[in-house]
Amino acid sequence: MQKPIFYHAGCPVCVGAESELIDLVGIENLEIVHLGEKKEQISAAEDFGVKSVPALVTSNGHVLHINYGASLEDVKA
Amino acid sequence: MQKPIFYHAGCPVCVGAESELIDLVGIENLEIVHLGEKKEQISAAEDFGVKSVPALVTSNGHVLHINYGASLEDVKA
Repeated sequence: MQKPIFYHAGCPVCVGAESELIDLVGIENLEIVHLGEKKEQISAAEDFGVKSVPALVTSNGHVLHINYGASLEDVKA
Repeated sequence: MQKPIFYHAGCPVCVGAESELIDLVGIENLEIVHLGEKKEQISAAEDFGVKSVPALVTSNGHVLHINYGASLEDVKA
């Protein structure tokens, strides 16, 4: 099964949420993608329905937007 | 250690997020509080910093607002 993917962009809200999620589910159970550093993955995130970061795409493809750090538009800029 | 507390109010967004979180961390690792049915617990949620539901308060007291179902003001009404 595909691991849940945590998308972030290095913002303070993202870093906090990442830390909490790692505590909750274990770092070995997450794929972590920094969209600021891997802009080529932004379109895949958008295809999942990610509108802002931090966000978690679950194994079954649902998006949990967690708190609010930045919109994907901001990350593209 | 205090279990993470998932606050919700029975809204469709809440139900979806609850299902995803149970898949992620396991139902035995969550305390689930329906604030619509337990309005006496709204003030405790506010003390944690919960502004809207669904929200997860982690074991160390941090709040993850997940997607957006309703404000706590709406739940009080």
